[in-house]
Amino acid sequence: MSRWPDGAAERLHAAAMELFAEQGFAATTVPQIAQRAGLTTRSFFRWYPDKREVLFTGEDELPDVVAAMFASAPSELSPMDCIRRGFRDVVSARFERLRPELLARWHVIRTDEGLLERQSRKLAILHEASVRGFRFRGLAPLEADLAARLAVTVFDAAAARWLERDDAVFADVADEVCSELSAVVRGGQG
Amino acid sequence: MSRWPDGAAERLHAAAMELFAEQGFAATTVPQIAQRAGLTTRSFFRWYPDKREVLFTGEDELPDVVAAMFASAPSELSPMDCIRRGFRDVVSARFERLRPELLARWHVIRTDEGLLERQSRKLAILHEASVRGFRFRGLAPLEADLAARLAVTVFDAAAARWLERDDAVFADVADEVCSELSAVVRGGQG
Repeated sequence: MSRWPDGAAERLHAAAMELFAEQGFAATTVPQIAQRAGLTTRSFFRWYPDKREVLFTGEDELPDVVAAMFASAPSELSPMDCIRRGFRDVVSARFERLRPELLARWHVIRTDEGLLERQSRKLAILHEASVRGFRFRGLAPLEADLAARLAVTVFDAAAARWLERDDAVFADVADEVCSELSAVVRGGQG
Repeated sequence: MSRWPDGAAERLHAAAMELFAEQGFAATTVPQIAQRAGLTTRSFFRWYPDKREVLFTGEDELPDVVAAMFASAPSELSPMDCIRRGFRDVVSARFERLRPELLARWHVIRTDEGLLERQSRKLAILHEASVRGFRFRGLAPLEADLAARLAVTVFDAAAARWLERDDAVFADVADEVCSELSAVVRGGQG
């Protein structure tokens, strides 16, 4: 898919996000999106299979981001420290840069049960990539599965909190979530 | 919905599960299900909104099962011990009784991306009910959210392992998953 700023995919994406914000996801049609972008309905389907997928653009880059998290982690780190460091040093910069887009998407996704279900596929991709990362670091299958689920938990919980607060810094929120998660597992009740 | 063993809902359910197993979920139509059950297509839609929902019957009972887990847990238990005990003492008996049905569903759900997405809604219901349980036990919002995510993690990881192994006992698998999860968070790398 073209990533040029004036490309058709980007114009369709911008038009769709505008319409979702103005009139809601359910009420927006593909012909409306195409018209707003000054393109044909047919050209929309050249770039996106349906209007839902506009909200998940870039998902195919996720495994590479996760792989980068693991590739740059010192081998002696524990799984939780590996997760903590990955979100702080690798994911954070990307997230802060994409904040306006992620916030706009989240405002749409949270309104629709079907979109929340679709969002779970994104988390499944993150889980699979994390399992590969932890297996590569020598964890047994069950350990790697559970460590990957913890990574998804931190990602999902931290992203929601970060997007809900105007002045939040993703690295700090992810750090806080990691610490609280460890405390809960160790048995602290607050 | 009627729960009588000879009721229309149960006949439609049994017919649908047979057809999903025989010819796959995607190839099965609502008219086929109704015909196999000796009923009309119209009567199918009186009981189920679509063929997908046949695989999620009983989901509305989930919040009560989770509430029972929390209601019977001694107040001094840590969150992880509360989860461990709940799966061992409350969920386990129910799961062993439903094993053939859960296994049949899982064989269908795992074959279809859309069904796996739909399955995530079930996990979201479990998460919400667990948040309420942990809040009631006095946990702060972030702690309750994370403890509930751990409960979902244990549920999902343990259920998959239990269904994959012919001779597995759910209580034992859930116990093992809880122990491994604690070990991973504490920093053991195997």
